[in-house]
Amino acid sequence: MARERSTTRREALSMDVGFVGLGAMGRAMARRLLAEGHPVRVWNRSPEPVAELVRAGASAAGSLAEAFEAPVVLSMLADDRVVESLLLDEELLAGARAAVHVNMATVSPALARRAAELHARHGLAYVAAPVLGRTDVAAAGNLNILAAGPSAELDRLAPLFEAMGRRTWPLGEDPAAANVAKIGANFLLVSAIEAFSEAAALAEANGLDPAALLEVLTNSLFPGPVYAGYGAMITQQSFEPAGFRLALGLKDVNLALDTGAASQVPLPLASLLRDALLQAVAHGHGEADLAAVSTTSRARAAI
Amino acid sequence: MARERSTTRREALSMDVGFVGLGAMGRAMARRLLAEGHPVRVWNRSPEPVAELVRAGASAAGSLAEAFEAPVVLSMLADDRVVESLLLDEELLAGARAAVHVNMATVSPALARRAAELHARHGLAYVAAPVLGRTDVAAAGNLNILAAGPSAELDRLAPLFEAMGRRTWPLGEDPAAANVAKIGANFLLVSAIEAFSEAAALAEANGLDPAALLEVLTNSLFPGPVYAGYGAMITQQSFEPAGFRLALGLKDVNLALDTGAASQVPLPLASLLRDALLQAVAHGHGEADLAAVSTTSRARAAI
Amino acid sequence: MARERSTTRREALSMDVGFVGLGAMGRAMARRLLAEGHPVRVWNRSPEPVAELVRAGASAAGSLAEAFEAPVVLSMLADDRVVESLLLDEELLAGARAAVHVNMATVSPALARRAAELHARHGLAYVAAPVLGRTDVAAAGNLNILAAGPSAELDRLAPLFEAMGRRTWPLGEDPAAANVAKIGANFLLVSAIEAFSEAAALAEANGLDPAALLEVLTNSLFPGPVYAGYGAMITQQSFEPAGFRLALGLKDVNLALDTGAASQVPLPLASLLRDALLQAVAHGHGEADLAAVSTTSRARAAI
Amino acid sequence: MARERSTTRREALSMDVGFVGLGAMGRAMARRLLAEGHPVRVWNRSPEPVAELVRAGASAAGSLAEAFEAPVVLSMLADDRVVESLLLDEELLAGARAAVHVNMATVSPALARRAAELHARHGLAYVAAPVLGRTDVAAAGNLNILAAGPSAELDRLAPLFEAMGRRTWPLGEDPAAANVAKIGANFLLVSAIEAFSEAAALAEANGLDPAALLEVLTNSLFPGPVYAGYGAMITQQSFEPAGFRLALGLKDVNLALDTGAASQVPLPLASLLRDALLQAVAHGHGEADLAAVSTTSRARAAI
Repeated sequence: MARERSTTRREALSMDVGFVGLGAMGRAMARRLLAEGHPVRVWNRSPEPVAELVRAGASAAGSLAEAFEAPVVLSMLADDRVVESLLLDEELLAGARAAVHVNMATVSPALARRAAELHARHGLAYVAAPVLGRTDVAAAGNLNILAAGPSAELDRLAPLFEAMGRRTWPLGEDPAAANVAKIGANFLLVSAIEAFSEAAALAEANGLDPAALLEVLTNSLFPGPVYAGYGAMITQQSFEPAGFRLALGLKDVNLALDTGAASQVPLPLASLLRDALLQAVAHGHGEADLAAVSTTSRARAAI
Repeated sequence: MARERSTTRREALSMDVGFVGLGAMGRAMARRLLAEGHPVRVWNRSPEPVAELVRAGASAAGSLAEAFEAPVVLSMLADDRVVESLLLDEELLAGARAAVHVNMATVSPALARRAAELHARHGLAYVAAPVLGRTDVAAAGNLNILAAGPSAELDRLAPLFEAMGRRTWPLGEDPAAANVAKIGANFLLVSAIEAFSEAAALAEANGLDPAALLEVLTNSLFPGPVYAGYGAMITQQSFEPAGFRLALGLKDVNLALDTGAASQVPLPLASLLRDALLQAVAHGHGEADLAAVSTTSRARAAI
Repeated sequence: MARERSTTRREALSMDVGFVGLGAMGRAMARRLLAEGHPVRVWNRSPEPVAELVRAGASAAGSLAEAFEAPVVLSMLADDRVVESLLLDEELLAGARAAVHVNMATVSPALARRAAELHARHGLAYVAAPVLGRTDVAAAGNLNILAAGPSAELDRLAPLFEAMGRRTWPLGEDPAAANVAKIGANFLLVSAIEAFSEAAALAEANGLDPAALLEVLTNSLFPGPVYAGYGAMITQQSFEPAGFRLALGLKDVNLALDTGAASQVPLPLASLLRDALLQAVAHGHGEADLAAVSTTSRARAAI
Repeated sequence: MARERSTTRREALSMDVGFVGLGAMGRAMARRLLAEGHPVRVWNRSPEPVAELVRAGASAAGSLAEAFEAPVVLSMLADDRVVESLLLDEELLAGARAAVHVNMATVSPALARRAAELHARHGLAYVAAPVLGRTDVAAAGNLNILAAGPSAELDRLAPLFEAMGRRTWPLGEDPAAANVAKIGANFLLVSAIEAFSEAAALAEANGLDPAALLEVLTNSLFPGPVYAGYGAMITQQSFEPAGFRLALGLKDVNLALDTGAASQVPLPLASLLRDALLQAVAHGHGEADLAAVSTTSRARAAI
């Protein structure tokens, strides 16, 4: 396996990549591809990020269609709506020379199913490969990549994934599965934040320093980046700058709820999170870090 | 500091300990004290565990009063009610020779406050030192001990705590704070289990193997024993033997809610957990492992 | 005022009405208009209901455009999506001779706002007039009509509303307000059903006949049709035939949640109702009466 | 039946009644008994209400034991704890000449079961007869009385119930059933208030006057005193004077939850109400009217 990978890697040096969507995550990921020697032609709705990437060695695609002339196209767009309007386009796909489109955004499994079917109709493979990790993780090439789609395509894409991530998790042939995994991960993330927020309010009201509680927890039951990172923001009630915007967390919880509704799976904890996040938005914390949902636990208790 | 500890440790070799409450946890902890050379006189309501510990080198206290003749008494009883009826006894405390009583059970901060006051009235120090870890962790002397009470007492108790735990977390002078920390930790534990249970149901209904989801999560956002251990039981839907009984988890969530009510801190997530746990009890899972709360997520979705 | 009304009524005898959407409610309402002497030209996607209404004295519109040649058009379609695709059509509205379009369906206030703006652009007035009451109430002309829009239009429409309803509730100039009122009413309806469902489960598990509880309640605190009607179905656990389909109730609760999300108003009770309804759908009760949400309360308690 | 009643009524004129607990409700009820010609000996912990009732024609019992010398004793105490400490007293019951004790307070079915057993052991019948109605309703003799206990006792008590209530609802032989009914009624009451509170917040944020919404609702789906009365307080955000104190509403919702827990019936709506009421208490509304729980819906939405 290790040998096979390194072979693939060598071959990949000549792999031409189209990259669509140069937000903060997209830029960091495209830079990693360039750093590993992949020629990248980039496209973005606004021109500034394109110019930035061109300075870093990318070429600029004059249109989406031009980006889809590369054999492999990666996209990292904001949400279902943007993907739908830009990429699920009969004309674009009919004219594409690309063999595979890898959608790395956090979108619904319903969109993945529609996309896979539409791509297949036009002879393209569709791979879903959403990622775990913020922009700093992306910049370091340390993302966890949750990938699902035709296994031959996943093999072919391995060198690109290796350029961007520390590990790729193959989740089967059905692209939707990767989106479900990403949605599940973010749902657990927000759950952990709400749980610690409530515990911190309980602690504070009962004479226990939430920071002391956090130290115990992260050194015993709950190691890892989530409790430590968000926990510190919560104990300090400091939510700027936003590593993960609260409004995006609400979008992701809504994805979980919509996916649950479509598959008849009630998710009462996701409902609770949605209400708490919505309350935080109503109180002006939509652009703050996700950890600002903790303001709601404090407000309930008049702390 | 290290030197001071080792001195204390030497002195502790002659520290006589009374130990009340020989359930599975109490037995494992008392054995650790014996293993580290502390003379232990044990008391328990039923005689069998006493006999077992005597075989292991303990002496049997003929009565609670006799256990309270030791300079230090540790207790590990089931809940508030049992502690209240057995140990918050004017006569017992009035006649005690013990200088300090260390309550290591998971009880309410309200009980801790009453206990501290009652002990003080009779000249005893009261320390709360609930623990994180199941019986296997206790047997290995690897508990995390959450300790709060007069700091001089915490210093004096260090060698006993070291015999039982891998680390002691001092949480201040107010014993109630340690109970709040323990309640908070268990609340987060059950929260994590419910969150993964809902995510697993969502995964299963959408063609993603919950075990694959779990593998991604525990290798990225959520390392540590909680997600891995309970997650495996959930993906296998296997809840026997019970490492942590579901009925006890319900008791602990109720402690969180009662503590919240007493301090006017609403905890909607704890309310949700209580309802899910109660549903699991209604369906016969009270004696199964806490992970059996996941049956509720599946039942909601008719999986 | 009474005199003015009767004048308007006389004039209305010659008022030509287009009617779009002949589901069970639409048919009953169109028949009432015919019964009061209003010429009605009907349109429906499937032909059978058109034929039925023609036998009852209506004329058939050959197209939507033909229906919109009448000075007043009433529509009673299924939901936002259907209204959007059929009626929020630039071409249709540009060519319409109608002066006013009265949307009597239960749709979102967001749709009402878009519709009002689009109609205005084409010189039509837009009135929202959703109704309270099932088909039997509609057939008897006893609906409660929640009407909002330009007040001159509401005056002009009075005779039509009187033909269909026992009372019209004017809710201001902004059509969206009427939709909010309807959504609020249905949210309260489902809330009352869930509350009684939980109380009935509690009663049953504690030796109190839920029917006895219902009798007390409907004769004291909770008179009126909701508790009595749905309560009886719940105490008998009999949900056929469906007077109000559970799936429609879920649609309406989702409208409440979407409206709340758009206006940053968390509605935790609506979230709870959504989860309970979704669970009932997952268990096969989507086509049963709304009262079947009570199966969820019983399932939780293993009754 | 009517004849039988009037006979019983005549006989009752000589029925001597002990009355324990002269809070606002107890005083109003005892006065009704006096007004209908029943001799009443009253007992209360504080003396002022006793003096007031003596001025109204009652006699003062020098002790609880003296009150229990009457053949029938009615009690109207605050809660489980007070009933338990004052009346579930072996000595008191052993020495009582009373044949029946009628507990009219809102207490748990668990207490009713313990009480019935204890009374039986001492040869007394125990009847539970909690009431629906506030003090003004009690003063007018218009309570709804929910009565359960031995049917011969219910017959015998009819004239007393008729003096206090507009209707008596016999709920079987098991006293606990009456308490379950009362708890269920109050749970529905708080549910209705929360539902309207959320709907009112949604209305307000969407340009619909909550008072207009209320007018529609109370004239269509939701007639009766609950929606109209609490609804008006909510639309006016005016919560003084408190007809039904919010803290008491929280006590009653806790009774529902405790009863649910004891009988393994999850009540998620009651959990939601508890959290909302607790939040209102945390914000200083515990002594305001129950309608003040609506402040919570507004706070969530930053209204």
